Amino acid sequence: MFEYHHLVQFYETDLMGIVHHSNYLKYFEEARVAWAHKMGIIDYQKPESASFFAVVETRVKHLKPALFGDQLKILVQARIKGARIFFEYKAFRGPVIVAEAKTEHVSLDKDLKLMKPPQSLREIMEKSVWTETWLSSL
Amino acid sequence: MFEYHHLVQFYETDLMGIVHHSNYLKYFEEARVAWAHKMGIIDYQKPESASFFAVVETRVKHLKPALFGDQLKILVQARIKGARIFFEYKAFRGPVIVAEAKTEHVSLDKDLKLMKPPQSLREIMEKSVWTETWLSSL
Amino acid sequence: MFEYHHLVQFYETDLMGIVHHSNYLKYFEEARVAWAHKMGIIDYQKPESASFFAVVETRVKHLKPALFGDQLKILVQARIKGARIFFEYKAFRGPVIVAEAKTEHVSLDKDLKLMKPPQSLREIMEKSVWTETWLSSL
Amino acid sequence: MFEYHHLVQFYETDLMGIVHHSNYLKYFEEARVAWAHKMGIIDYQKPESASFFAVVETRVKHLKPALFGDQLKILVQARIKGARIFFEYKAFRGPVIVAEAKTEHVSLDKDLKLMKPPQSLREIMEKSVWTETWLSSL
Repeated sequence: MFEYHHLVQFYETDLMGIVHHSNYLKYFEEARVAWAHKMGIIDYQKPESASFFAVVETRVKHLKPALFGDQLKILVQARIKGARIFFEYKAFRGPVIVAEAKTEHVSLDKDLKLMKPPQSLREIMEKSVWTETWLSSL
Repeated sequence: MFEYHHLVQFYETDLMGIVHHSNYLKYFEEARVAWAHKMGIIDYQKPESASFFAVVETRVKHLKPALFGDQLKILVQARIKGARIFFEYKAFRGPVIVAEAKTEHVSLDKDLKLMKPPQSLREIMEKSVWTETWLSSL
Repeated sequence: MFEYHHLVQFYETDLMGIVHHSNYLKYFEEARVAWAHKMGIIDYQKPESASFFAVVETRVKHLKPALFGDQLKILVQARIKGARIFFEYKAFRGPVIVAEAKTEHVSLDKDLKLMKPPQSLREIMEKSVWTETWLSSL
Repeated sequence: MFEYHHLVQFYETDLMGIVHHSNYLKYFEEARVAWAHKMGIIDYQKPESASFFAVVETRVKHLKPALFGDQLKILVQARIKGARIFFEYKAFRGPVIVAEAKTEHVSLDKDLKLMKPPQSLREIMEKSVWTETWLSSL
């Protein structure tokens, strides 16, 4: 399973002393992009390839706070169903799950019009392993 | 119904030319805090009062992109049920809904331990009007 | 003198309980864009007009911390000198200066190539009042 | 010389297709904290140690834009002079300098009062190598 690491930065904390919740969407994007880059779907030289994963829905469950200096490990699974692309994520600090999330995406072209996900993306994503009921809290 | 306004800033856009999705959680927080401040629940002189609304779950549906310079109008409804606090949001550009969202919260004390929401908060929130099925997409 | 207001948000604080310093560049951008929009230089319908003010240098002096819920007032002055555009800013909480800043800009075209600032921008900016030694700490 | 790496994220770009300038202060903080952590000055288990480096002034020169997917290398030098702490930074994409920066810091206690930098910090920083005129553009 794809694994991504993020070290919590000082600027990601808030006055409660914990990671502000909006940052988790950034962490999950980092993990998603790293996955898609590794799979050859996102090409950094072609930044428009990032819009193959335009975000239409996000859902995040916060189970534990994360703190400055925490080394988070994020696991990712992905699948495609017609024109809709789904990702799920678990974020761990050591053995503890701090958050779980689901995101849903569609592919957009340069003019932000809905387009069919490219064939190469489809082929890669259709081979991706997906476990129903992998998340325990969402 | 409580109404909050946010002008989309340049720094909130991404290379697709639209508002990056992580900013919506910030907009909804702005609206939630403005509501709670107006209701006398959050006191800016006591920033720890913000932790009465620690975030445990968020869900956002993106219906249309928002753009630099858009004047967004955000409507909010809130309720409490035992120790759990719920908010729902609709973000509009003119007459068009660009996003809908739900967030769930609990109250934490200074040591990030779960605490019962303060009585004054409960009284105010229990009087708040809540319409089931107000959101059309979530 | 142009005046801009920003209410400090919860998500702008860090674990020291104060506004994280990176946000001040966002506040000054908000003030600069609001000024340029009011002057007719930045058109929200033409977001590429924002690149008339591509940032080449920033300098910020922090004199006092700003806190959650602070209503900041930001004063701005602007001038042009050849192809280089300059802004200066003072951020106040009540009568107290919390920060001062200078930024320098050039105009870029869509391909990020240096271009001459548009004539209309030049005309407006050349009429703008500029006071040398307005800032006291930079 | 201490070297830090940052992969430019999608959410750090703006509608000009480049890294928004406010992110550089975050990159330099990442590099500064990584340096201080490696030197034993910042302890992630004691987040208040981050306030040994409260920011009082920043200066950033942007020489080239940075893009989504760029692997930035940041070099850092640090010194102390009485109660004032100085850092300088160069950010590279390959062999090209994209930005240079200087930041100045003081140590604050929990109540945000100025304090003398801790002795252990002083000893480490006084041994740090510093090259005058290292930066070429600031």
